[in-house]
Amino acid sequence: MTSSRESTAYLTVSCKDRPGIVSAVSGFLFSKNANIIHSDQHSSDPVGGRFFLRMKFHMNGIEDGLEEFRQEFAEKVADKFDMEWNINPAWIKKKTAILVSKFDHALMDLLWRAKRDELHTEITMVISNHDDLRKAVESFDVPFHHVPVEKGNKEASENKILELMEGNADLVILARYMQILTPKLIDAYPNRIINIHHSFLPAFVGADPYRRAGERGVKLIGATAHYVTEELDQGPIIEQDVIRVSHRHDYEELKVLGRDIERQVLSRAVKWHLTERVLVDGNKTVVFT
Amino acid sequence: MTSSRESTAYLTVSCKDRPGIVSAVSGFLFSKNANIIHSDQHSSDPVGGRFFLRMKFHMNGIEDGLEEFRQEFAEKVADKFDMEWNINPAWIKKKTAILVSKFDHALMDLLWRAKRDELHTEITMVISNHDDLRKAVESFDVPFHHVPVEKGNKEASENKILELMEGNADLVILARYMQILTPKLIDAYPNRIINIHHSFLPAFVGADPYRRAGERGVKLIGATAHYVTEELDQGPIIEQDVIRVSHRHDYEELKVLGRDIERQVLSRAVKWHLTERVLVDGNKTVVFT
Amino acid sequence: MTSSRESTAYLTVSCKDRPGIVSAVSGFLFSKNANIIHSDQHSSDPVGGRFFLRMKFHMNGIEDGLEEFRQEFAEKVADKFDMEWNINPAWIKKKTAILVSKFDHALMDLLWRAKRDELHTEITMVISNHDDLRKAVESFDVPFHHVPVEKGNKEASENKILELMEGNADLVILARYMQILTPKLIDAYPNRIINIHHSFLPAFVGADPYRRAGERGVKLIGATAHYVTEELDQGPIIEQDVIRVSHRHDYEELKVLGRDIERQVLSRAVKWHLTERVLVDGNKTVVFT
Amino acid sequence: MTSSRESTAYLTVSCKDRPGIVSAVSGFLFSKNANIIHSDQHSSDPVGGRFFLRMKFHMNGIEDGLEEFRQEFAEKVADKFDMEWNINPAWIKKKTAILVSKFDHALMDLLWRAKRDELHTEITMVISNHDDLRKAVESFDVPFHHVPVEKGNKEASENKILELMEGNADLVILARYMQILTPKLIDAYPNRIINIHHSFLPAFVGADPYRRAGERGVKLIGATAHYVTEELDQGPIIEQDVIRVSHRHDYEELKVLGRDIERQVLSRAVKWHLTERVLVDGNKTVVFT
Repeated sequence: MTSSRESTAYLTVSCKDRPGIVSAVSGFLFSKNANIIHSDQHSSDPVGGRFFLRMKFHMNGIEDGLEEFRQEFAEKVADKFDMEWNINPAWIKKKTAILVSKFDHALMDLLWRAKRDELHTEITMVISNHDDLRKAVESFDVPFHHVPVEKGNKEASENKILELMEGNADLVILARYMQILTPKLIDAYPNRIINIHHSFLPAFVGADPYRRAGERGVKLIGATAHYVTEELDQGPIIEQDVIRVSHRHDYEELKVLGRDIERQVLSRAVKWHLTERVLVDGNKTVVFT
Repeated sequence: MTSSRESTAYLTVSCKDRPGIVSAVSGFLFSKNANIIHSDQHSSDPVGGRFFLRMKFHMNGIEDGLEEFRQEFAEKVADKFDMEWNINPAWIKKKTAILVSKFDHALMDLLWRAKRDELHTEITMVISNHDDLRKAVESFDVPFHHVPVEKGNKEASENKILELMEGNADLVILARYMQILTPKLIDAYPNRIINIHHSFLPAFVGADPYRRAGERGVKLIGATAHYVTEELDQGPIIEQDVIRVSHRHDYEELKVLGRDIERQVLSRAVKWHLTERVLVDGNKTVVFT
Repeated sequence: MTSSRESTAYLTVSCKDRPGIVSAVSGFLFSKNANIIHSDQHSSDPVGGRFFLRMKFHMNGIEDGLEEFRQEFAEKVADKFDMEWNINPAWIKKKTAILVSKFDHALMDLLWRAKRDELHTEITMVISNHDDLRKAVESFDVPFHHVPVEKGNKEASENKILELMEGNADLVILARYMQILTPKLIDAYPNRIINIHHSFLPAFVGADPYRRAGERGVKLIGATAHYVTEELDQGPIIEQDVIRVSHRHDYEELKVLGRDIERQVLSRAVKWHLTERVLVDGNKTVVFT
Repeated sequence: MTSSRESTAYLTVSCKDRPGIVSAVSGFLFSKNANIIHSDQHSSDPVGGRFFLRMKFHMNGIEDGLEEFRQEFAEKVADKFDMEWNINPAWIKKKTAILVSKFDHALMDLLWRAKRDELHTEITMVISNHDDLRKAVESFDVPFHHVPVEKGNKEASENKILELMEGNADLVILARYMQILTPKLIDAYPNRIINIHHSFLPAFVGADPYRRAGERGVKLIGATAHYVTEELDQGPIIEQDVIRVSHRHDYEELKVLGRDIERQVLSRAVKWHLTERVLVDGNKTVVFT
């Protein structure tokens, strides 16, 4: 998160762990006169585990030769170790689409942070199944699309959404979008859709969890941000946090505090995703904060 | 939690809410020349809800007239409002029995705090179904009783435990006691048995939750202290807290952090119980911290 | 913080502690058929200390007889105990004026929360010594006043501010207002001006504290909300909180996190003030959360 | 913090940043058939900054060739980059000496964690200027030395301490040792003496800070663990944390909470030091947690 992003790129790698990976990667970067600014590495198990690497590096002129650089990295390093990898420019803002229903707390926090360039992203659109938040969104000079969801014809609205996002969304954020996505949309953005939902100890499944949390007298309420997979709310967890509550908080107040923790957790998860800090490891994540 | 406990008592009340309760209680105390040091009050719902009150008051000479004082309070105040109530002396240390199996982290923390008089309790005994912790306990000059649990004959060991605790336990703490209590023991100490267990978001039911939390990649692990009821781990929650974890924490490290948060949460719950801060409201608690 | 505010009022009291205060107050409320919804009480010292009380009560028809109610309370209760006291309606939104310079993070958080009615206040105006934030403020339909501060003539601008706020500000919030107020303005709003500033362990006095905190390698950065007194940043503390940082956070990132913690701390302090939870005790506060 | 420490070592490096460092280090490790288990890296500034690296690696048979391995690393890598570096075995427990006065909270926590092997250290001795804690220490089978400090002759006691620690202390912990060390002792253990002290916002210099924190009405109390340098309490900060307090906490209670946070912060700092996670950067630290 240095202020300068010129000539800077992120390299992320995951592969079967074995000796020589770091040596090969760093040797390649050195041969290209690239300087490693940050590097984080993790091995899920020294024996037979999986290896994860995130590097941020600076290389003069990479803007003009990125594709070539990628190809050479593939040939000289990645193929040998059977890597899953990405090299993404830090100087280009990723495009983000936000899906939302009627609650605006998470949305507004993201719009505001994007405007101050805290997230280093371009929010290309906000899509909602309701028209309520149009004015709020447009005051940020962000396009707003109302895509209603007809009962029994979710496919039509999802096709419309896919069309709108085509080429305009590197990341999709569900900022309290109260519709279940179909596998078609999920598969189009693997590990690139982030959802936020409330979390409780113990868990409360079903409707109106804040009421039930209040009835159960929990002392903490929380939120979880995760990548969306076909199993509802079961995708890889990116970030979680909680806030302390007591018998003094009534139902309305619990919901206010719930909104506060949801927007904090979501904005952290989004920031980490956009700076390539989140690597997926099966159904969990490695987050290099 | 003032340092002086002489001539000081706790009054706790719960009853159906209606106007005049505080006036009646405080009027009575004033008529007895008692000075209210702290007072906390809560109404679960202004209309038709339940009223909760905790007062700590000072009254010269109450040591010699406590029984009479109680009787008068019952007649003049409590009966009129159909109160559940207690008046307990602060100058007498409550007696606490601890049940434990093999893990010593929660036990040791309690023994230390009791020794330093942080809890204002006398730990009258530690009972375990194993003999492992005898030396550790006896170094605190606290009696240790080994009460093994035979398969198929839990009743015998519980009878032994009940016998040991008879008259010697105002509070029972399950400091990682890996046996499920029978209704007989639970009913003998209603809202006076505190248990501690781990908590996760999402919840992991069944064996070895730390392994499963690690596999799921959770970002928080927690602990919950609650009163024991016949529904396993479902009694009124007294306190909860969490600690942050990441992919860098392996299974062993998760367990170490889990122990840390368990002993912190348990010691807070015990301290609050012993200073009469915890009032039970059905299956939840009002905790006047 | 119940949702209904009709026929509901806050009573706050501070006076020298002695027996009979609660009895007198609650007896009076009972005689008026008022029902106490919440009550919190604190004594700074049981012997010779100061007594603090906050009650939220419901009384049918109080809207039409508030002045009379106040007068009767003064005569029958307050005067006897030499109380400092307030009885404020919960059904009327207090008026809040915000002073700000160029940073908008704390301001925007307050405008949002007010718009969602989380704060139960009417933001009557935003005053700034710069014109930068006009558009942002006006998009919330809140009047914006640009009151520049001329070097050597702060009095003129403060007079203008006082004039704008006259009758329109029960509370004044300095949401990163980078001007030192004169005693004249401070004295006009005793314990009714809330300021937010960063806090560090150890403290860094002087310019650019985030740079110096980074140089010192602190592991926490924080914020403090306090009432403004003539001693700069030394007034009664209302709320404090911190956020964890590390060597991985550069100067820009420290400032982003600093903004996050500042707006959280300020919004909590403001919410507590507006629900009459903050009582001042010399140079410190009693906050009944 | 993996459970197995056999054939495993920590490499820590700091040097002027320039391209090729990681490549050189990892190339060397690869050439020795060493497998990198964890690696963390930090650059204080990509341009002209300082580079920090911590690697944990596994290499069969390193136990028998450690000295040779070090020499080869020096010649082939370290000298070229003018590195400050260490290669320390993970299979050998470091020796720790604890200095303490009369407060036992931090001491007991360390003794207990060491006994459970949470810290992977051998506590070789506890030295105190009072004899009070002898029994508590000896119950852990740890040698206790009473070294009184005579007024005006601190040198004699420090010489005695230095003699006791000679060859028996890789780390020195001041677990509430209420004596100021002389430069002689400090210089003998550069960046290897860890101290814990309370921290407040704002800071309270001088005697009885908990009383003054209570008088000032702070909402947080904290603790800071740092390396000891000749400037009192100004050495590189390793870890800090805070705990929430309110007007409800009296002086005694503030001190209890202060002890709790002190022992938590100290035990974290010690654990991190002992697993080579703390690299000193001038007067601050890089902590690879």
